[in-house]
Amino acid sequence: MGDRMFAFIGGISGPWRIVRLEAVSGESLEAVPWLDVVSGIEDSLPAGAKWLLRGVTSSERYTTRRERDLLVARQPALGRPEATCAALIPVKKSASWWGLAQDERRAIFEQRSEHIKTGLNYLPAVARRLHHCRDLGEPFDFLTWFEYVPGDSAAFEELVVALRRSEEWKHVEREIDMRLVRDETAEC
Amino acid sequence: MGDRMFAFIGGISGPWRIVRLEAVSGESLEAVPWLDVVSGIEDSLPAGAKWLLRGVTSSERYTTRRERDLLVARQPALGRPEATCAALIPVKKSASWWGLAQDERRAIFEQRSEHIKTGLNYLPAVARRLHHCRDLGEPFDFLTWFEYVPGDSAAFEELVVALRRSEEWKHVEREIDMRLVRDETAEC
Repeated sequence: MGDRMFAFIGGISGPWRIVRLEAVSGESLEAVPWLDVVSGIEDSLPAGAKWLLRGVTSSERYTTRRERDLLVARQPALGRPEATCAALIPVKKSASWWGLAQDERRAIFEQRSEHIKTGLNYLPAVARRLHHCRDLGEPFDFLTWFEYVPGDSAAFEELVVALRRSEEWKHVEREIDMRLVRDETAEC
Repeated sequence: MGDRMFAFIGGISGPWRIVRLEAVSGESLEAVPWLDVVSGIEDSLPAGAKWLLRGVTSSERYTTRRERDLLVARQPALGRPEATCAALIPVKKSASWWGLAQDERRAIFEQRSEHIKTGLNYLPAVARRLHHCRDLGEPFDFLTWFEYVPGDSAAFEELVVALRRSEEWKHVEREIDMRLVRDETAEC
């Protein structure tokens, strides 16, 4: 399981410089200059760090085989050298969302909000990894990490705006938008 | 989240006496005489305990609204004074199961294995609580806890046999069957 667990550590070191950190809904996180992304189980806050968010990659909750095949055919890997822009978007959904049955959540997520269909429009530009954390006792339900080249910044912005306008997002009660750069000269 | 987390502690104390503990598939657990069921986050093994299994109740992964309404209308609460028999069935599914897409898992789980439909046949006799643990780094993926009156022991056995014959169970690679009594005179 350790290889499915990731920690996002906000503090004074790491390869990613945080250029923007703002609350879209609910309480923000303390502003810090750097983010480290660590694979494996991390339980204690390193010296100088202000927060640590943990999540685990897991089985897909809504994606059908057909959708998965489309995603797999188009999605790029993380770590492309030219993808010097990143975003970390922690999201917490409402208790009423989690009280819905599986078919009701799927209907909002895809039939009515086109979450997967919208995401497919931004492939192969935007690489993405979804981490689940609701069942870990974390403050957020999901942490999504995105990487893209500076030239795709406007496209990424469009994707985020489209999702925030969706019916699904009415069930989001806390959301942080964090933007990062790996190269000081990158304009993201 | 603490109120959704449960620990099952096998050792020398607890309200439930373990009358049977056997591996159905894969490796067994160390035999112990008593089981304690604790609500909340438990990280350390109490003195005298041999193992601790943790799980969290969570959103339903496959159940539709219609199925949920049928379940809620029929299912009894845990803790009925007359339900002095219990079972704890830890299950781990295969990597290939977890590699399936959501619609493929649902098709096996219900269309082809009738997991929910079969369970409904044993309501209101058998009370049940499902705990998820795959994403917690635990040795099992699920811990299911059942409570029933001694007179429903044969019905419970039928339920377990029906599920083990299903296509879904071909994806189970480790399973323990533990039976317990709360009253020394109970015949379960």
